[in-house]
Parts: sequence; structure tokens; C-alpha cells
Amino acid sequence: MHSLILHIKNYIPVEDEEYESILQFFDTAELKKRDTILIEGQICKANYFIVKGCLRMFFINEKGVEQTTQFAIENWWISDNLSLLTQKPTAFHIQAVEKSEVLSIGNSSYQKLIQLHPSIESYFRMMHQRALGAAQYRMKYQHGMSREEIYRFFANSFPEFIQRIPQYLLASYLGFTPEYLSELRKKKIS
Amino acid sequence: MHSLILHIKNYIPVEDEEYESILQFFDTAELKKRDTILIEGQICKANYFIVKGCLRMFFINEKGVEQTTQFAIENWWISDNLSLLTQKPTAFHIQAVEKSEVLSIGNSSYQKLIQLHPSIESYFRMMHQRALGAAQYRMKYQHGMSREEIYRFFANSFPEFIQRIPQYLLASYLGFTPEYLSELRKKKIS
Repeated sequence: MHSLILHIKNYIPVEDEEYESILQFFDTAELKKRDTILIEGQICKANYFIVKGCLRMFFINEKGVEQTTQFAIENWWISDNLSLLTQKPTAFHIQAVEKSEVLSIGNSSYQKLIQLHPSIESYFRMMHQRALGAAQYRMKYQHGMSREEIYRFFANSFPEFIQRIPQYLLASYLGFTPEYLSELRKKKIS
Repeated sequence: MHSLILHIKNYIPVEDEEYESILQFFDTAELKKRDTILIEGQICKANYFIVKGCLRMFFINEKGVEQTTQFAIENWWISDNLSLLTQKPTAFHIQAVEKSEVLSIGNSSYQKLIQLHPSIESYFRMMHQRALGAAQYRMKYQHGMSREEIYRFFANSFPEFIQRIPQYLLASYLGFTPEYLSELRKKKIS
């Protein structure tokens, strides 16, 4: 069974005969490492589901440095939700961190999908609500923890990320210098 | 017309005869300044729509200091979305900043509401998606701006907040000391 269908079935009931009809509204893309699917200034055209691989969202700060704000691995969705919803230009880039396969769905396909399968709206409502909830907790950690505590929390909560994400990207996400992250890692070993 | 109905009608069509039937699923609460509707350790029971007034979400850090992560004024929703969705205990408090009136809807009323009015699911999907999108941009500002830039951005984007929110709460939200915020304000005047 397709991983998107398996994921949807975690949240809402889906009949066997609906699978193909749901999947036809999504486009598949194979991405090479560093392929970019959204560039600052563009209008975000779709919401992306990661079938395989890893994507990241980043922006370029005033000094020209890339700062990562979000990663997405298998079974996660990634998009600039404000640009997608309002059709205004994005301030972000979305790029493959490794060779990846994604499904994408734009606004007009989304409208057709929920017309045919109204219960899918519940699935997306829960996906957005869950991601919003995670963002609320992330604000708490950023406010309330030292940089070292954030790293420890992150390493305990998402060990698979720590193994998988290149160290300089992880540093950019956590707001560390690569040198500081390397020090923290050494501390853990010793 | 009730402000919630007006708000919903900005996003989806609602027939005149549906108004009363929709509103009956919501409970109304009048809150005094500092009334608390969610306390750390509780399970978040509802999503709250602000009819009048202002609420804030905060947590208490290791030093016992309250740190505000979010405000909500008229026509905004506030909740611990992760606790509401998963029915696990919250790490947050939600409190009235001033005398307020809110509508609330819990999970079981929500399920009954969308059974009777399925299109309301679209409204909530968009509310969560919009709030998620705003949180994505907030991460960008927190990463990429100096504290003074964040204040200027905030003051330009939400002038009504700056007038309305007590200065010590605004400082707590922005991660400033009240003294630093006071300095920034003086700078603007001079």
C-alpha cells in the first residue's frame, strides 16, 4: 500500500476502493540531492508529502547565509502554508537534503480531491493542527531552553535526524555554529 | 450577526438558516482579567475563539518566570493544539489579559458540528493552516532578526497590540527585559 494511504488511514477510515481515486490527485516527483522545489519570491504551488528522503525549508538572511527553519522526513508534509493559502510570494526555499521522492498537491487538485472524498479534509485539518501544535511547543523550547538543552532535547526526541542530517545543516537549524555543535557532540561521547 | 459567523463567512459560504445551528455547538464564557482557562498539567479541552478582549498563552520556566509565547485578540483562535488533539497534558497556561468574552468548542461538540455542517471542517482546516503558516514566518523572524528589528517589525505589523498589551507582557513575549523594551520605545519617540 502507498505510504500516503497508510498515513491517511492512521487518522481517518479509507475504503479499499478509494485508494487509486485519492492518489490520482497527487503528482510524484523524484528529487536529486540539492534539487529545489520552492525559491524565495515564487508563489508556493503545492503541499509536499515525503515518500522517501528528506527536505528542508530555509531562508537566506541579510548576510547571505542560509538558515534552516524546518526539516521533513518520510510521512511528513512540508510547504510554505501562508504562501500556499494566500498565493502571495514566499520568503522561503524548500530543497532536498538527500535523494528524495515526494507527492505534491496544489490548491485546485486539493479542491477536486475533497469534493470527491470529503473526509480527506479531516485528515488535512489534523495534519495542520498537529504541525501547529508542534510549532507552539517549539516556541516554548526556543524561549525556555539554553542552546545545549535544545540540542539534548532534539537528540533525544529525534535520534534518526541526528544520524541523518549533515552536521552543518543541523547547526543551521539549531542556530549553532558547526564548531559549537561539534563540541556538544564530543561532550556526549566523553 | 455574531462575530464568529462573520469570521466563518470570510472563508466559506454559510446559509442564513445555519447560523443558530452552528452557534449552538459553542459555549460562551465571560472572563475577568487574569482568569485562567488552561493550567499546566491539565488536558486542553477546547479551542477558544475571542469574541471580545485578549488572551495569552504562556509557560513557567525553570526560574519560575512566566514567558508568553502567544497573544490572541478578537477573531483569533487560541488553544494548545497538541494537547487538544492528543488529549495529553499541556505544558502551557492560557489566561485573559483583560476582561474578555470567548466561545469554546471541545472535541466531541466539534465532531457533532462537522457531522451536521461538514463545510465547517474547511474553515478549521484553513484556520490551522493559516496559524501554522504564521508560526513558520515567526520562526524566520526569530532566527534572522536582531531583538530591536523584531520589536520594529512587531510594532509595524500589529500596532493595535502595542497599544493594548501591558508592557511587561509584551516584553515577555518578545524575550526582552521590560527595561530594554522601555529603552526601545524611548528611541522611537526621540
